[in-house]
Amino acid sequence: MRKVYLSNTPRGEALDQFLSRVDIPRRIETLATAAAAGRVTGGPVIARLSMPGYHAAAMDGIAVRAENTFRASDQNPLLLAPDKDYRYINTGGPLPEGFDAVIKIEDIQVLEDGGLEIIAPATPWQHVRAVGEDVVAGELIVPGGHRLRPPDLGALLAGGITELAVRARPKAAVIPSGSELVVPGTDREKGSVPDFNSTVIASYLAEWGADPEILPIVPDDPAKIRASVTAALENNDLVIINAGSSAGDRDYTFSVIEELGEVFLHGVAARPGKPTILGQAKGKPVIGLPGYPVSAYMSLEWFVRPLIFRCLGLPVPEREKLRAALGKRVVSDVGVEEFVRMTIGHVEGRYIANPLTRGAGVTMSLVRADGLLVIPANSLGFEMGEEVEVELYRPREELRHNLLAAGSHDLIIDLLGTFLKERNPRMSLSSAHLGSMGGIVAVGRGQAHLAGVHLFDPESGEYNWPYIRKMLPGVTVRLVNLAYRMQGWIVPGGNPDGIKNVKDLAAGKIPFINRQKGAGTRIYFDHLLREAGLSPAQITGYGREEHTHLNVAAAVAAGTARAGLGILPAARAFNLDFVPLAEERYDLLLSETFYNSTEAASILTVITDPLFHEKVEAMGGYSMRDAGKIMEG
Amino acid sequence: MRKVYLSNTPRGEALDQFLSRVDIPRRIETLATAAAAGRVTGGPVIARLSMPGYHAAAMDGIAVRAENTFRASDQNPLLLAPDKDYRYINTGGPLPEGFDAVIKIEDIQVLEDGGLEIIAPATPWQHVRAVGEDVVAGELIVPGGHRLRPPDLGALLAGGITELAVRARPKAAVIPSGSELVVPGTDREKGSVPDFNSTVIASYLAEWGADPEILPIVPDDPAKIRASVTAALENNDLVIINAGSSAGDRDYTFSVIEELGEVFLHGVAARPGKPTILGQAKGKPVIGLPGYPVSAYMSLEWFVRPLIFRCLGLPVPEREKLRAALGKRVVSDVGVEEFVRMTIGHVEGRYIANPLTRGAGVTMSLVRADGLLVIPANSLGFEMGEEVEVELYRPREELRHNLLAAGSHDLIIDLLGTFLKERNPRMSLSSAHLGSMGGIVAVGRGQAHLAGVHLFDPESGEYNWPYIRKMLPGVTVRLVNLAYRMQGWIVPGGNPDGIKNVKDLAAGKIPFINRQKGAGTRIYFDHLLREAGLSPAQITGYGREEHTHLNVAAAVAAGTARAGLGILPAARAFNLDFVPLAEERYDLLLSETFYNSTEAASILTVITDPLFHEKVEAMGGYSMRDAGKIMEG
Repeated sequence: MRKVYLSNTPRGEALDQFLSRVDIPRRIETLATAAAAGRVTGGPVIARLSMPGYHAAAMDGIAVRAENTFRASDQNPLLLAPDKDYRYINTGGPLPEGFDAVIKIEDIQVLEDGGLEIIAPATPWQHVRAVGEDVVAGELIVPGGHRLRPPDLGALLAGGITELAVRARPKAAVIPSGSELVVPGTDREKGSVPDFNSTVIASYLAEWGADPEILPIVPDDPAKIRASVTAALENNDLVIINAGSSAGDRDYTFSVIEELGEVFLHGVAARPGKPTILGQAKGKPVIGLPGYPVSAYMSLEWFVRPLIFRCLGLPVPEREKLRAALGKRVVSDVGVEEFVRMTIGHVEGRYIANPLTRGAGVTMSLVRADGLLVIPANSLGFEMGEEVEVELYRPREELRHNLLAAGSHDLIIDLLGTFLKERNPRMSLSSAHLGSMGGIVAVGRGQAHLAGVHLFDPESGEYNWPYIRKMLPGVTVRLVNLAYRMQGWIVPGGNPDGIKNVKDLAAGKIPFINRQKGAGTRIYFDHLLREAGLSPAQITGYGREEHTHLNVAAAVAAGTARAGLGILPAARAFNLDFVPLAEERYDLLLSETFYNSTEAASILTVITDPLFHEKVEAMGGYSMRDAGKIMEG
Repeated sequence: MRKVYLSNTPRGEALDQFLSRVDIPRRIETLATAAAAGRVTGGPVIARLSMPGYHAAAMDGIAVRAENTFRASDQNPLLLAPDKDYRYINTGGPLPEGFDAVIKIEDIQVLEDGGLEIIAPATPWQHVRAVGEDVVAGELIVPGGHRLRPPDLGALLAGGITELAVRARPKAAVIPSGSELVVPGTDREKGSVPDFNSTVIASYLAEWGADPEILPIVPDDPAKIRASVTAALENNDLVIINAGSSAGDRDYTFSVIEELGEVFLHGVAARPGKPTILGQAKGKPVIGLPGYPVSAYMSLEWFVRPLIFRCLGLPVPEREKLRAALGKRVVSDVGVEEFVRMTIGHVEGRYIANPLTRGAGVTMSLVRADGLLVIPANSLGFEMGEEVEVELYRPREELRHNLLAAGSHDLIIDLLGTFLKERNPRMSLSSAHLGSMGGIVAVGRGQAHLAGVHLFDPESGEYNWPYIRKMLPGVTVRLVNLAYRMQGWIVPGGNPDGIKNVKDLAAGKIPFINRQKGAGTRIYFDHLLREAGLSPAQITGYGREEHTHLNVAAAVAAGTARAGLGILPAARAFNLDFVPLAEERYDLLLSETFYNSTEAASILTVITDPLFHEKVEAMGGYSMRDAGKIMEG
């Protein structure tokens, strides 16, 4: 029988339980000081030698005996006898035996006969660096548990420490398990999935200070998983199994850990990341991570990161936090803590945070995330406009210059972001795919800097302005043309169904893949339907929605749809055919405030750059003839 | 003739000039994705493949054709025919051809005869992960100029990118120059100095993203320096020479750069770091760094760091800033920007910053620094208590838990810091060596958490309280014993001058090394003088001061003094003799507020721990018999 339900232990409780029941023993290793940057000292380090090791001149000049110079004055310059009274000395040079002060070269008068006069006495020990001024033998250079930075290495070497004890990095085995997994780069047959999770997990582990090793992929076979874990336990301080941590009939992680040791907990009241297994075998921590990428990385951070930092004796670093206004309502279920990836930007004087997709399988949501919103288990979520605290994935300073693009998404927006970043490393651009209508709303509410808009108004034959006027009455905004682009039918190679217009779709009951409500392309499709006198019910698949041109093309390429409406580069990305339908205007909507900013000026500089036009037009289906032109309403 | 004066160009101007005249060309290299963590993308990266590459089940259950399930309801359960109507499917498995929805395993009724029923219809595409849900072919995964983090690697591999173009790390040669330099670890003869600067410079360069190489040490010989720079220019993008950048008669860096290329600037109006040379040869940046360690690292950060970040196309990260009250007046000269290393802690609700030594040669000041105070060129400095902005070397969160120890310094304080940190990784301890009197003042003013105090009052025969009562009238404080320790004469091995008491010192005109004013040991020495009826003038070297026991011992070991007053472990560190004089009480002074904090509780836990006692007593000359006892006034 399947065991279907997991426990619902609160995350904090799960972590406390785990940390109290397992540990990674602390080991020490000896390293050359020069190779120890970033490592953590194994104990206090005391200087063996002093630096300087002798009394040294702190200036270029002459070494003197101070008591022999007391008579020197402006009125009575004192002639010094070479060797007996003075010796030339360079900065850093050792003070000769019996000498106790240095006079700077600038304060010496060289006479015509080569004699040497001074006009002021030297005080004892002036301009002398005493033994141990830099580092003195016997002093503590760095305490134990200290992460070594470059100047620490300098002080250690100065203090005669050429090698030292550091805490060994805990060794962590990562076992990718799953019959569907193949090594990344292997040809992907239907049903096979590249094991990219292991690379992410190992990179995080290395970043946190562990020494990770990715073991060979193991199929869903309990004996083989057991053998791999058993071998891994020999040479490692902890073992991570990814995945098989859920409760399906091919999920063996639980039973393997239970067999080899003990499972403390199966299931955390947090999302994504719920199907986590915490246990031990041979006294070493064994963790079963969920298979969905975002779930796996969340769970790794919750339970493995504190374990590693504790082993290294370092505090777990806290992420910078920021208060931001929500650009969108975020709902949550009571009883489960939710982790929502957010884009964050600084719009009209305040930080705005927008949720990205919450799918546990969407790695791109972590790539695009600027921060994380943690919704407590007892909360139903937050309203739009509400101020929330977000944990930052990028420095606050960077987010201060992060532009939020809402509205319709087009590949040109990504290209614009890349150009901006390459020319102004401080600038960056985060996109939310809200559709044209959503973009107008976001700019109107001060929740985005700009929005891509391509909304045709059949009545006036005009683009965008009729919608903007209606949706943002009385608000001053600017509309700048980004491009004209060709919309058309995205169909399988050779256009087997001979799609030319929307009537062909209806007549042939061709499975269609639609765009989401509010998208300009959806509105255009509805317009085509009305024009042809058709109703949505006559289109097979009208209710099936995707959020981007590329995802529409992907559905056609996968054969689950036989037609979609979209742009040429999307069809090209999947080697599909494209039946051009009409050129449409794609504009950028900017608030008046933003339009007058230096950031907007940088955007306009890119948009009007022939190099940018060249790159855009190379994608196919674009005309940049009006790019950068203000489109008057 | 010596060229003595350097230019006084403001730092910002010098940097602008430098960056406008030199550049490091950007190179691209191809790396395996799995090895690219932390590297910067060479251009935008577009997904080649979609993930998932096929429509996949998002749940464990059965794949069905939605249109065949529409009739199912609570009242009329629908029996499904295996194979034709349904197929079992696991999460991630490919949806079989012709099937378009998944029903969760929990929603299926298995009948006794093995038949399978459902009681609700499936909607098309429910519980299906569409092709490209995670990453869709053709979409931008990361823009150019993006520093790769672990989840980026996952998205790249998911998108079929197993190798990618990244910006090559600029190659930087570090040339240690100076006839006094030896490789660290070599036996140190008088006049030789281990080259530890190169290791620090190379570690910083690597941390900032460059690829550094330390070349062999070159003596102060212009031909050899020229040859080394010429060779370095062949294989590197920039060359750093350390040192010889000043204007002494053995400083050849200027003339070598001038000969091979061009010097833009010699001398910056900033301290430490003034004698910097910025130039080029063969079109590549060549930098002459000062010889004093702190100067070298400051200059490296000012001029080389921005160059590297520009080459990598990344913004130069800004340090976190903090407003703190000055615990001490900090003066500065007009016309020069000054960089003062500071300790920082959070005392009684506000951050307090105290200056460390400003010596350019004191590497330990960088090791001990929690932050940096930048005094503008037009400022005369800041008054005690004034609020200043400091740049942080450690995260603010860490400094929130950093304890400031003022007052007399003893090796036990360092040991206490190490014990605290090992047991509470979030805690740390920064010491300012202010002497006992300075420590009482600092605790009284809320500028330190605790102070080491050992002040004997001859009139009452009492320790510490008479001074505290006089200096902090009406202030409630706590005094806790840390140890009793033996004070004595630190003298050369075999005590050749037969020092037993202060009269022997005076009689033999033995060169003495004193402690600074306000130090408990200085006050004790003055007491010994008065007791013996002697005056300071009768003591040779009475005016020569050191700030620590260890530095006193170092002076005796170097032979520039033949006696000092101090503690046994200091004598031991230099293999000197120690003539015990008297046991003294060494207490910790804590404000009442701090005494009641959890941090103080952690301190008391360490102080009363037998393991700590063992470690302290092993240093020699300590008794822990009252450690942790409240010393009533």
